Amino acid sequence: MSDRRTEILRAATRVIARRGVRGLRVEELAAEAGVSTSLIYYHFNDRAGILHRTLEFISDRADRYTTGPAPQDGPTDPRRDLEQILLLELQDVTEVRENSTAWGELRASAVFEPELRDDLARATHTWVHEIAELLGRADPAGTAPAHAAAAERLTALLEGLSVRWLSGSLPLAHARRLLREAIDVETAHAGRGGRAD
Amino acid sequence: MSDRRTEILRAATRVIARRGVRGLRVEELAAEAGVSTSLIYYHFNDRAGILHRTLEFISDRADRYTTGPAPQDGPTDPRRDLEQILLLELQDVTEVRENSTAWGELRASAVFEPELRDDLARATHTWVHEIAELLGRADPAGTAPAHAAAAERLTALLEGLSVRWLSGSLPLAHARRLLREAIDVETAHAGRGGRAD
Repeated sequence: MSDRRTEILRAATRVIARRGVRGLRVEELAAEAGVSTSLIYYHFNDRAGILHRTLEFISDRADRYTTGPAPQDGPTDPRRDLEQILLLELQDVTEVRENSTAWGELRASAVFEPELRDDLARATHTWVHEIAELLGRADPAGTAPAHAAAAERLTALLEGLSVRWLSGSLPLAHARRLLREAIDVETAHAGRGGRAD
Repeated sequence: MSDRRTEILRAATRVIARRGVRGLRVEELAAEAGVSTSLIYYHFNDRAGILHRTLEFISDRADRYTTGPAPQDGPTDPRRDLEQILLLELQDVTEVRENSTAWGELRASAVFEPELRDDLARATHTWVHEIAELLGRADPAGTAPAHAAAAERLTALLEGLSVRWLSGSLPLAHARRLLREAIDVETAHAGRGGRAD
């Protein structure tokens, strides 16, 4: 991906995080990215194209900052990986705050903007499957539907906690504690053969 | 509360659910409610006053439709009450859909509009305490902090599931099933003396 294109997507994320999806105008995005509007149209076609690629950019960036350092020699620990991948979404650093704000805003806007829905549903499914896979490795005796349901709950809870944190209803440290406990609760349940139906 | 005032608040909820908090303009609200803008200013002072009272209206309305029929003669069942009060937030009827859409939109907007934050945090606390109280009645041997933490998780999960449903990432019946299972998982955990720290 060209540097210019990445810079435009990074700027689009900032604009959405600052002014919401409705606040994203091509002219403002051009000013934020320091490029011409025609370059934006060249790369993304139209506003729908910008939103589509920005959602992708946000998902990829979250993948990156929630993936820890390469495993050292020694056994991997899926339970620890699971905790890390979820908790790293709740960090008070600019990139995460910006990414989470923009994601929450895209999610809320999809209620009003149907053209966002398919992309968002797809990104949600990918995320849920990734978490379900880690739950499966942490609890190999469990069933795939039980892991999938637990992954849906943990990721939906994370979205709920994240917007509470960002909207000032929940201190960050407490949000992290609630999420860590939820992982305990869900994995303990799975370990006892929690029903999936 | 005067009928006119209630009608304006009902109209404000519809406008927020349809066009978002940023789409709420006093002129449009007046048209939607069929009243003059001066009557709106008379009752609510300014846009901040409208938002403040609309949030209150939405909370009160949710209280009403999540409170089931009066208990019949016989023992009350706090576990059943808990399930009812939470699951009735996930119903495909106009009032609930409108209320949940407006609530999700107010929550997402509070990230950008700091003057919404205190009201929203207060409404969230009230809701969490109500659920914690029911969890305490369902599990009298548990501790208050454990019930409070479970209540925070269940309500944040419900917010996360609700916006996924409304944004088309999750079918309603499945969202309801995930929430019902979460209540099972949390109450089973509490019943085994789940740690609160």
